Amino acid sequence: MPAVTGHGHDGAQDHGQGHHGHDHGDPSAMRPVAEHAAAVAALLAPMPAETVPLAAARGRVLADDLVSPHALPPFANSAMDGYAVRSADLAGAPAELPVAADIPAGRTDGPPLAPGTAHRIMTGAAMPDGADAVVQVEWTDAGTEQVRVDRAVGAGQNVRGAGEDVTPGQVVLTAGTLLGPAQIGLAAAVGAGTLAVRRRPRVLVLSTGSELVAPGEPLRHGQIHESNGPMLTAAVDDAGARGELLRFVPDDVEQFTRTLDEALAARSDDPVDLVLTSGGVSAGAYEVVKDAFSGRGVTFSKVAMQPGMPQGVGHHRGPAGDVAVVTLPGNPVSSLVSFEVFVRPVLRRVLGHPQPERPRVRARVAEALTSPAGRRQFRRGRIDAVAGTVAPVGAAGSHLLAALAHADCLFVVDEDVTRVEAGESVEVWLLDG
Amino acid sequence: MPAVTGHGHDGAQDHGQGHHGHDHGDPSAMRPVAEHAAAVAALLAPMPAETVPLAAARGRVLADDLVSPHALPPFANSAMDGYAVRSADLAGAPAELPVAADIPAGRTDGPPLAPGTAHRIMTGAAMPDGADAVVQVEWTDAGTEQVRVDRAVGAGQNVRGAGEDVTPGQVVLTAGTLLGPAQIGLAAAVGAGTLAVRRRPRVLVLSTGSELVAPGEPLRHGQIHESNGPMLTAAVDDAGARGELLRFVPDDVEQFTRTLDEALAARSDDPVDLVLTSGGVSAGAYEVVKDAFSGRGVTFSKVAMQPGMPQGVGHHRGPAGDVAVVTLPGNPVSSLVSFEVFVRPVLRRVLGHPQPERPRVRARVAEALTSPAGRRQFRRGRIDAVAGTVAPVGAAGSHLLAALAHADCLFVVDEDVTRVEAGESVEVWLLDG
Repeated sequence: MPAVTGHGHDGAQDHGQGHHGHDHGDPSAMRPVAEHAAAVAALLAPMPAETVPLAAARGRVLADDLVSPHALPPFANSAMDGYAVRSADLAGAPAELPVAADIPAGRTDGPPLAPGTAHRIMTGAAMPDGADAVVQVEWTDAGTEQVRVDRAVGAGQNVRGAGEDVTPGQVVLTAGTLLGPAQIGLAAAVGAGTLAVRRRPRVLVLSTGSELVAPGEPLRHGQIHESNGPMLTAAVDDAGARGELLRFVPDDVEQFTRTLDEALAARSDDPVDLVLTSGGVSAGAYEVVKDAFSGRGVTFSKVAMQPGMPQGVGHHRGPAGDVAVVTLPGNPVSSLVSFEVFVRPVLRRVLGHPQPERPRVRARVAEALTSPAGRRQFRRGRIDAVAGTVAPVGAAGSHLLAALAHADCLFVVDEDVTRVEAGESVEVWLLDG
Repeated sequence: MPAVTGHGHDGAQDHGQGHHGHDHGDPSAMRPVAEHAAAVAALLAPMPAETVPLAAARGRVLADDLVSPHALPPFANSAMDGYAVRSADLAGAPAELPVAADIPAGRTDGPPLAPGTAHRIMTGAAMPDGADAVVQVEWTDAGTEQVRVDRAVGAGQNVRGAGEDVTPGQVVLTAGTLLGPAQIGLAAAVGAGTLAVRRRPRVLVLSTGSELVAPGEPLRHGQIHESNGPMLTAAVDDAGARGELLRFVPDDVEQFTRTLDEALAARSDDPVDLVLTSGGVSAGAYEVVKDAFSGRGVTFSKVAMQPGMPQGVGHHRGPAGDVAVVTLPGNPVSSLVSFEVFVRPVLRRVLGHPQPERPRVRARVAEALTSPAGRRQFRRGRIDAVAGTVAPVGAAGSHLLAALAHADCLFVVDEDVTRVEAGESVEVWLLDG
């Protein structure tokens, strides 16, 4: 059992937000982080595909390879404003050619080019049959009836060939692509008015605690403002899923279960994929989440980590059917760290992200630090990418939310490490990446 | 004048999407990139603040410092489930103490602790007056009438002091903070039900070209699918602003102006901050954007860059009032690169981001490449952060949208550099950061 050294330190980190918990125990009896992570990962299957308009696709993940039905460009076209010509006609340039047609971009009925003539052509306009090059207007007198061309051009010059960018049937974006501006531009260019993307998992966020008061409401002595609900809902949305905050309820098992079941039933048309709770999972006398779910499909464990020891995973089997459940500890720092370790990668994986994890780098710690034996420690930090260093923000087992809000990374101290010297290298998870 | 080497190369990059343009000229007569960027930056003032509910604040930028009106924790509370005691009473532990009260979290009327007694207390519950420490339940027999305590505790042990995290009046988040899950959690914890954030600029995106067909519609010969509109709208949203795509119009000045003025008038309750056009800005015979805006408040220039030479900036003075205008070239690659260089940093700056620019790093180019004299070249690339190298994707002046969609960075070749050898260092802008 790690020594409890006083408030705000090792023993104190899995409580907070006024929730109940114990953060001590025999590490050898604890569940390894990887084992709990696997149990959470097993809860959710990859999301099915749904079709959305292109304008709604930003930030979504492509469910199927996108195949272009046509070439891009779809037809040979001019790369310049100028004159479509047969290059052979200009072999003896300078030369004069009659201008037989005018081809603005978008003209769909451009006539073929007769030998010894030119067509005035704009950038992007289809090359007329018979032409093999474009002379840019700057090399001419810009005539509209007759044009004087000063220089010869080679075959193919200033012509974009059909299919130079994309060939018909080409896979232009693969399943798992995150759709940003450039990908949406490419999808539009190959004519996709809609895209098949993975459905965003729906996550119901519920926090518990009789001491909780909604932000914006006044506090009485003994009460605190509820922060986990808004925080975890934002974290769910940030991961690309759909978070919905269900108003927190007091520490009452019957009220908790009824509220949850009513909420699930009310959403049966667009069912909830995951219930995410915080608090009420520890060893205190009033542990509403644990009492509501224990022995009914949810397994509660002490996980060998710091912070975030009390964790639960399983299914709630209610009147509205089975729903996956992950229970996070009540302390806000523990809760968000646990979300990062267990929940976010799973949400992103079922969304189809090829890289569900946060970007990971290695950096040297700026100061020596300690970690409990047998537990994986997740420290909050600020990285200096230029120096290649990471500085801890807040104490190891800290419940300090202000420090968390100023961190830009987590870093990991492995289970078998109890002390890291300044300058030693650690794995860093970049939260802004 | 740089040599035109053929289709798809140097001379061809500012056209495309079927739009019109010239990408050649005397670099010494061109507008420097920095000068055009300054003109775009001068268009928009910092956005005013607006108040939004906490649940709508994710991804927004805080407009004012957030001050906590109270301490966090607001009161001294227990960090453990256990027994609140006077540490002096346990000096001779083991000891037996009568349990005089039960203090669950959220109890607002906990009585003071009489000497020689204990109160059963849950994590997060307010410490009773007179108590100075908590004994965790594991060090006791967990009695409810009488408790046997096995070990002594020091004063302050397992107690979180009021204000340990935040003191009253403390600035917990500064103006300019991007609000993610942790920041929203902290704001909630200090009781903020709403937050003052910068209003998101409203951007109307308009592309032009008679050859354009909406994605999802069939193409006739000479037509292409409109890609800039969806792409730029997504890019605006990605920057944190509000993009709205106005259906593109044919190359007709009167129709263009009427469509724009009607759209601006229809939005006068929530006015448009910026009109962003693509295409129609070059030297061809049909340049609707240039013809509509020239001499009426918008300045068109050749900017010394590749791609993206034809640029415009200014104001449209229509019946609905003045509105800022930026005109981008029509080629999708030029258009998105121009957006990155000129528009995105300005949108983020007026949104209050302390770091409006993309993250910039240096990396060694994987292969030798050339760049036109006197123009700043923006290449699309893929970075290998581990190796510290960047590989170009697509040719320098490429109109290839497929290549753009597979790039994860831009990199910069300065105006006075015409050749970069493999292994030389360049500035890289990370697009995924």
